[in-house]
Amino acid sequence: MSQKASPATGTGPCSGRQYRFASRMAKTPKSFIREILKVTENPQIISFAGGLPNPGLIDVDGIARAAASVLAQDGRSALQYSTTEGYLPLRRYIADRYKKRLGLVISPDEILITNGSQQCLDLLGKVLVNPGDHVAIERPGYLGAIQAFSLYEPVFHPILLHEDGPDMAQFAHEIDRNAIRFFYGVPNSQNPSGITYSEDRRREIGKLLADRDTLVIEDDAYGELSFDGTALPSLRTFLPEQTIITRSFSKILAPGMRLGWVVAPQQVMDQLVVAKQASDLHSNYLSQRIAYEYLLHEDIDKRIEGIREAYKQQCGLMISLIEEMMPDTVTCTHPKGGMFVWMTLPEKISSMEVFEQAIRDQVAVLPGTPFYVDGGGNTTLRINFSNATPEKIRAGIGRLSRVIRALERE
Amino acid sequence: MSQKASPATGTGPCSGRQYRFASRMAKTPKSFIREILKVTENPQIISFAGGLPNPGLIDVDGIARAAASVLAQDGRSALQYSTTEGYLPLRRYIADRYKKRLGLVISPDEILITNGSQQCLDLLGKVLVNPGDHVAIERPGYLGAIQAFSLYEPVFHPILLHEDGPDMAQFAHEIDRNAIRFFYGVPNSQNPSGITYSEDRRREIGKLLADRDTLVIEDDAYGELSFDGTALPSLRTFLPEQTIITRSFSKILAPGMRLGWVVAPQQVMDQLVVAKQASDLHSNYLSQRIAYEYLLHEDIDKRIEGIREAYKQQCGLMISLIEEMMPDTVTCTHPKGGMFVWMTLPEKISSMEVFEQAIRDQVAVLPGTPFYVDGGGNTTLRINFSNATPEKIRAGIGRLSRVIRALERE
Repeated sequence: MSQKASPATGTGPCSGRQYRFASRMAKTPKSFIREILKVTENPQIISFAGGLPNPGLIDVDGIARAAASVLAQDGRSALQYSTTEGYLPLRRYIADRYKKRLGLVISPDEILITNGSQQCLDLLGKVLVNPGDHVAIERPGYLGAIQAFSLYEPVFHPILLHEDGPDMAQFAHEIDRNAIRFFYGVPNSQNPSGITYSEDRRREIGKLLADRDTLVIEDDAYGELSFDGTALPSLRTFLPEQTIITRSFSKILAPGMRLGWVVAPQQVMDQLVVAKQASDLHSNYLSQRIAYEYLLHEDIDKRIEGIREAYKQQCGLMISLIEEMMPDTVTCTHPKGGMFVWMTLPEKISSMEVFEQAIRDQVAVLPGTPFYVDGGGNTTLRINFSNATPEKIRAGIGRLSRVIRALERE
Repeated sequence: MSQKASPATGTGPCSGRQYRFASRMAKTPKSFIREILKVTENPQIISFAGGLPNPGLIDVDGIARAAASVLAQDGRSALQYSTTEGYLPLRRYIADRYKKRLGLVISPDEILITNGSQQCLDLLGKVLVNPGDHVAIERPGYLGAIQAFSLYEPVFHPILLHEDGPDMAQFAHEIDRNAIRFFYGVPNSQNPSGITYSEDRRREIGKLLADRDTLVIEDDAYGELSFDGTALPSLRTFLPEQTIITRSFSKILAPGMRLGWVVAPQQVMDQLVVAKQASDLHSNYLSQRIAYEYLLHEDIDKRIEGIREAYKQQCGLMISLIEEMMPDTVTCTHPKGGMFVWMTLPEKISSMEVFEQAIRDQVAVLPGTPFYVDGGGNTTLRINFSNATPEKIRAGIGRLSRVIRALERE
């Protein structure tokens, strides 16, 4: 398991003092995305490198109405300390929505409100992972999860992703060989690959893990962003006592409100609440109240429908341009939802080279290597379509294909 | 170092499944305060047990104006993802305020915006503490810090607090005997004791720790809540490269916005930013924008002046009633700021007994034991004055003194 480590000790430019850091910090990959996003902050650059929702689809007016209403009607309470678990009516709303959308019976007591779903991953690492514990993750796997879990020093076992989900033979092999504490996956429109697990594959995962101690962390960031509104069954359907779900309002309401949640069986939840309290007492209460007010009085379903439709157009345009303009040696996934397309280059072209050349032509893409906990992925690229206009998609894919064609000729 | 451990494995009432948790969870004291606060949720009860700011002093209208303005003028950006470090103008404002108030020269790059100052403690534990590392903490020490650090499994060395600060002989002894990674303290109006370190004591701590590797975490939650506006020097004045400061807007603006910050030397900050990104990407951006808008257009100094004046009255009333109504065997601290008075009972009376008797008379206090990492504190009580009207203070202290007098007669 090779990982790029950030230096855990060192002297700064202005001070001779040596600081000692916890050894877990050396295990945490420095965010490659973070460094790249700095390069792409230049507004001249067409960026497919990030993972931002389309800001034009955020309902600023609706949120402003909700904020004004909460502050006018119950501001003193909304601005005070609150409970670690989160605002109960909001947790009830989330529970009801699971019932309606997926037929899942979830108690509000099994839901904890977090600072975006990234915090779920940190809390789960805290509660579940001893150093050296075995953890299975998709290959490629979500970088935010790799970063969050790495601080708790697990041994990662990457499971190859096919177009319909994890490689079940490899999964079974890893499960038999190691005491896997949990499998972490993104079954709906995965980040970074855009892959959605088939219903069969979900059922097979259920069969493989039933009667075992292995838990499943189902990161459902994009579950409501399937382009045609399809809602495939959660792994909780097959593994009700073993599945933990993480999600957030970032992709359907607004990321700046930092509201996510984790669904977990009661015993796990009890430990998550202890960890959450020690970590930051509770999530932003004002935002929780605003979100609930919004959900109560505005039409979130219509909003989500609008986001789906827009992303479907943006994704469709991007794929058709890739197929039209790129050499035949380039392949890409055909996502059914979410925010990313995953591109694979011919073997002789490195994605890092593509990144460096493309940035000179003012288009930014994300090399796939940081999504591989075991190295590899040198010919892969993650391309974000949610935060680009059709014009930018046309211009950006045009420039990118010229860069790739030039590298292929070299 | 004995600690009450929450069970790290167990079966729930409805499920036979055994879940395994990370061993760090067994090291984290279950929040006693949390359990007690549940008892005191009954609105009939006069509660001195919590630590809430007076909600009547929150400027709901000013915050509502700031929220409306941010959402109207720049809502789309305020609701999008943002940087891990936090909103730069807000960090600049905080840096300027340190210069004006305490003469500290701090770069905005040395400031990270967090979810309340509790998150600073979690991030510092993550970045600094290996299991078994030695950490010094006040005795009694802030429970939130004990909980946050415990997850990183240090060995605590409690340093007795006197009326003017830590016992320097004991501090020197601990520093000589162990490689203390850091000392954590609350020099201004400490939680739970209400004690403020004298300037001499601060200087002595500076001398003791200079030329050593030991860092200082100065939790300055109550620094601006000194009743007479006195601002004693930060330990950073004496130990500029070794001092980390944590603070929040919870006590001066609004806790529900969950905005805190940590000030740390650049090398430590670099690691904190990596840990923050892995923990939750960034703090609530909407709240950061609202807070900055508020600070820019409303009069925060006048607000703070109002809070100081109110708390001074509430604290003064509480102390005079304690001295008037309690038996002579009861002593209490005379805080110069903050939110808590610390009471010591005669040896034959246990604070747990007082808690249990008092709750029957519908008044809640907080037994001091959870603030002691090494056991002890059985005759101490923390009494909060910030969140009670003069009427409630009168009635509550009256009932409490009757309970204590009755127990003394037994």
